[in-house]
This record gives sequence, C-alpha cells and structure tokens, in this order.
Amino acid sequence: MRVHAITNTAAQVFTANLLLAAGGIPSLTVAADEVAAFVSQAAALLVNLGTLDADRRASIPWAIAAARAQKKPWVLDPVFVDLSPPRLELARLCLIGCPAALRCSASEFASLAGSDHDRDAAVQAFAKEHAIVVALTGPVDRVIDGTRSVTIDHGHPLMSRVAAMGCAATALIAAFNALHDDPLEAAAAALLVIGIAGEIAAERARGPGSFEPIILDSLYGLDRSTILARASTA
Amino acid sequence: MRVHAITNTAAQVFTANLLLAAGGIPSLTVAADEVAAFVSQAAALLVNLGTLDADRRASIPWAIAAARAQKKPWVLDPVFVDLSPPRLELARLCLIGCPAALRCSASEFASLAGSDHDRDAAVQAFAKEHAIVVALTGPVDRVIDGTRSVTIDHGHPLMSRVAAMGCAATALIAAFNALHDDPLEAAAAALLVIGIAGEIAAERARGPGSFEPIILDSLYGLDRSTILARASTA
Amino acid sequence: MRVHAITNTAAQVFTANLLLAAGGIPSLTVAADEVAAFVSQAAALLVNLGTLDADRRASIPWAIAAARAQKKPWVLDPVFVDLSPPRLELARLCLIGCPAALRCSASEFASLAGSDHDRDAAVQAFAKEHAIVVALTGPVDRVIDGTRSVTIDHGHPLMSRVAAMGCAATALIAAFNALHDDPLEAAAAALLVIGIAGEIAAERARGPGSFEPIILDSLYGLDRSTILARASTA
Repeated sequence: MRVHAITNTAAQVFTANLLLAAGGIPSLTVAADEVAAFVSQAAALLVNLGTLDADRRASIPWAIAAARAQKKPWVLDPVFVDLSPPRLELARLCLIGCPAALRCSASEFASLAGSDHDRDAAVQAFAKEHAIVVALTGPVDRVIDGTRSVTIDHGHPLMSRVAAMGCAATALIAAFNALHDDPLEAAAAALLVIGIAGEIAAERARGPGSFEPIILDSLYGLDRSTILARASTA
Repeated sequence: MRVHAITNTAAQVFTANLLLAAGGIPSLTVAADEVAAFVSQAAALLVNLGTLDADRRASIPWAIAAARAQKKPWVLDPVFVDLSPPRLELARLCLIGCPAALRCSASEFASLAGSDHDRDAAVQAFAKEHAIVVALTGPVDRVIDGTRSVTIDHGHPLMSRVAAMGCAATALIAAFNALHDDPLEAAAAALLVIGIAGEIAAERARGPGSFEPIILDSLYGLDRSTILARASTA
Repeated sequence: MRVHAITNTAAQVFTANLLLAAGGIPSLTVAADEVAAFVSQAAALLVNLGTLDADRRASIPWAIAAARAQKKPWVLDPVFVDLSPPRLELARLCLIGCPAALRCSASEFASLAGSDHDRDAAVQAFAKEHAIVVALTGPVDRVIDGTRSVTIDHGHPLMSRVAAMGCAATALIAAFNALHDDPLEAAAAALLVIGIAGEIAAERARGPGSFEPIILDSLYGLDRSTILARASTA
C-alpha cells in the first residue's frame, strides 16, 4: 500500500522509513506535472506544509485535486503555520479541499482557527464546521471530530527531540485512513501505535540519536497483542 | 574520489553516507548553473530520477553533457518510472546520453523497455541496443550486458524496508565504474559488496531502523577476505 | 531557542537533529516569501551555501536582511565554494552582510580569500578586514578573529565520514552566538562541545553508521563537568 507524501525536506527520509517500517511504500515527488499520476495510484495522500518552496506550492493543489477525484483520503499537517502568514493563508485554502484529518500542535491550531478556539468545545465546533478530524498532538494527544473525542496518553518526551516525528505521525494517519473508514478511529489508532512504539523505544534508547532507529525497529516489530496490552485511551 | 549524485531528496543523505562509508566523497548539488563544474571535476556521476523537480530537470542534461565531455562514467536510476509518464519520457532521453549502466527494478525496466522485455534474452537485446549494462535488482540481482550476465544472490529482506537502499546502491555502481574499466564487472562488484554488507548487518540489526546505521558500519569495515569468503555469484 | 537554518538538502535532517539534541528548535524553510518571517522571530540564522538551487538563492538575501534588521547573529558556511565559480561569487556577496562567523575548510577559505591567505597572519588580516570570526575546521580546528586565535584539538576521524557533520557544527556556532556575545568564544565553544561529543561517541561507535546516532546521544547527555574535564584548547 503506497502513501504519497508531500512533506518538508527535513521529514522526507524519516517519513519514508516510518512508512516502510509499518509495511507501507512511500512516494515523495513534489513535481507539479508528476504529482497527480503518483497520487491517483496511491492509497492515501499526506500534505505537509513545511519548507513550502515553489515546487511544493505548485504541486499541492494538483495532489489534492487528484486525491479528491479518486476518492482517496488525504491528511493535512500545517507545520509552523503560526510563524508564516503566507503559509497560514495557504493552509486555510487547503482546508477547503476536505482533508480527512488535520494533525497539528495546539499553537498551530490556534493560528488556523483563531485564538479563541483552544477549548475542546471550540475544537469540536471547528471539526464540525469543516467536517474533519482534528488531531492535536503534544504530551497528551486529543483526537476530535464533530461529535466525539479520544485522548491518547502515550509516547515519550524523547519523541519531541527527533526531527519530523510529528510529520511522520501524520503520514501514518494518512496510511491508516486508507485501511479504515472511520477517520477518527484511524487517526487515534495511528497516534496510539506510534505512541506505543515510542514507549518501547525509550526503554532501550540512550538519547534522541539512538531513539530514532530504535522507534523504527519497535514499530516494525509491533504486534496486535502488544498494542492491546499497552493501549490506554482515556 | 568524489562522486556527484543528482538523486532524489529522500536518498541524498543515505547516499552521501554510503559513499563516505565506502571511502568516497559525495557532492549533491542540483543547481543547473553549478552542476557542470561539479561533474567535470568528479570521478563519476549518478543520475537518479526521483523527486524530479524543476531544478533536477534543468540540471540533468548539463550534468550528463559534462560527464560525456570529460569522459567520466555515469549511471542512470529511473526510480518509479513506471508511475509517471513524463518521467518515463525523460528517462528515455537520458538513455541516449550513453550511461555506463542502468540500475532499476524489473517493473521499472518493463516500463522503459516495453512490457515484452522481461525475459533475459530481451534484457540482453536491450543492453546490446543501448550499449549499456542493465542491473535489475530485487531479491536476486541480475547484471546483464550485450553478451554476458551475472546473477548475485546476496543481501537481506530488510534492505527493502530502508528508504533509498537501491538508490544508494546505484551511487556505488557509479563509484565502482570510476575505479574499474569493465562496466559489467563494476556493477556486479558494487551490488555484491552492498549485498554482503547487508547480510552482515542483518546479523546484528533488530529491525529496519537499526539496520540502516549498521549496514554503513558493515560497509566501512568490509575487507577483501570477507568479500571473497562470502561471495557467491551464480 | 529557535535557529533558522538555510542549509543544503543533505544537511537538513542531521542539522535539525543536532539542534534538537542540544536543546534548540530548528526551522528550515527556504521559501523566499516565508524566510524573513521565520528569521525575524528566530534567535540566530545559519546560511549554508550547499545545494544552491533557485529557492535557496532567492531566499538567502532576504534571510540575511531580516537577521540584520533584527540584530540577530548569523553565520556563513560556504560549502564546496572551491568547486563552483558562481557559488564563490555569491559567498563573497554574503560576506558583505556581516556574518558573526565564517566556518569552512582550509581549501574553501583559500578560494574565498585568495590562495595566499593560508598562514595564520593572513587569516587574521582577513578576519580583521571583514570584522568576522573565521573558524577553520579540520583534524585540528582554529578559530581566529582580528586579534585573537584559539586552537581546538578535539573530535575524531569518524566525524569526516558522516555527511553534514561540518554543516551541523556551523548551525551550533549560530546557536551559541545567540547565547553569548563574544563571537570568537561562541564559535570556539561550539566546536569544543561538538568535538568532545565526537570523542565520547567514538568510544562506542562501530563505524560511521552507528557514530551518527551516538554523537547525538553524546551531545544530548553532555554536562558542564564533562566538558570542563575534557576541554583542552591550545
């Protein structure tokens, strides 16, 4: 199952390796005249707005259009949208393209939604308005749609010391949306799996450097019984 | 010995590290107005068609021209040419530039050569027609020119779970072509060496994450006697 | 503390991970219309001239202008300037923008300054003329400004077998310039810290592959007493 990932240049390698460790196939081109062919034949699409250069900007609309035309799920990651006004504007345009899910930090969400949207009820209203799942990640993850919410309390602080961990998690959300019809459950399951892989990795890692290869090993070796035994969603 | 690698954004780091582990020096620029100077002073050139953005597209013809002008060997890796019609067209144009070798998967080769070219005799005819070595990699690798063929049965399944392993192998084929005059032997030796490094790495790796640094260590530590003891080409 | 790094595509991931391991936050965009917003709110800027494509070329002047407007320190890394005449010209233009420090190899420095500038007195004259710190790295590092010089004899040969080690060191010099007012001491301290982390990593690494994650672990775990115990600057 191939996932096409338009993602930032610092996230491409780790995202590709995470998808491979999870049993998927990554493709990553950002060329505007190729991207529609890649997305049309993929199972899902990730659009991550990091390192938003001219090629990415030109290819994102075609990628989203191809995903919608083929009814493939796609997921939006508006990295650092709180730091760049033109990126914020583009992120809002992307939201019109009906992503299955939006994965971001609380401060990125606040920029997108307006600063008064930081309580759960407000996130739910935003999710309902846009008919999407909002996955707010941090020390504790919350996954919210128009009517439901899940809290996932897994992972490890070292995950925030490895570049592109959140970006790669969004790619896994895209992959899980290709495997499962309910976007809230798909997003929650992806974050649960990566959180558990992170907990297992932290038991062996000596720092953020060794944590990176070890979390890929953990994800690769993860089985159903380990997930069920460790899962705790509040 | 420096190898200039025009390669996809997901392969650049691993390719650079693999060349360094093998004792080489990588350079990677894809800027059209710099690439000729870089290639002219390099020992060999890799052209990998992944993530074929505007900069890569503009620089590839100049890079090939510089390699030919200086009689430096160059090697073509037509990644995912089976997924993108414009990339397929460009790959065919690249073949006119007389690469020493073409490294690809069976399905990428089928796209390039036409779908009736999947038997060995057909690959040989293609190699003869284009005066190149064709290296078809997979669980077992075959290296074929107009008159000869070598089968290499080395490596490990984890190699297909690490991003850019095949792309980096093509860079090693380019490097070996700078060291040895026979392109078939150079390509076969490069794939043999990386396959043996992979076998050794698999003995210590716990998954695809740890496999990546360990195969670089294995390659770095590989000596002549280990290669001769493990080599088996059918 | 965020450091904005305009750096080459082979260095982005390792640079981001090194900044994260050192307790910083990286940002990496090279889009011309975003970069000023990113730099204005950052603590320091790295400009590395590797893989100098159209986006990098367009964004570097705006990034430098934003750093100067906000009085944020910035550091220049003219990678491979000895191989590419257009890059050399651009590097000289960058020097007019008053970087706090220039980090390069001896041969890159010779290209920038003219080939008769290889003795310490000549480096000092160059540093004085441009009012910058020159950090010449190699088996032994020298950090020189208009009046002072420091020699740092740390590190390990494996550091030259990992892609982007020097590029990432320059990012750390930028970070240290945000923390400390004296650019010579900041540059020397950054190179000392990364050299000591490399020495510790070499005790456990089995080759360049495992060296990369382990040096990040070492840097992450480094404390004041270890640095003071190991430091030897001649």
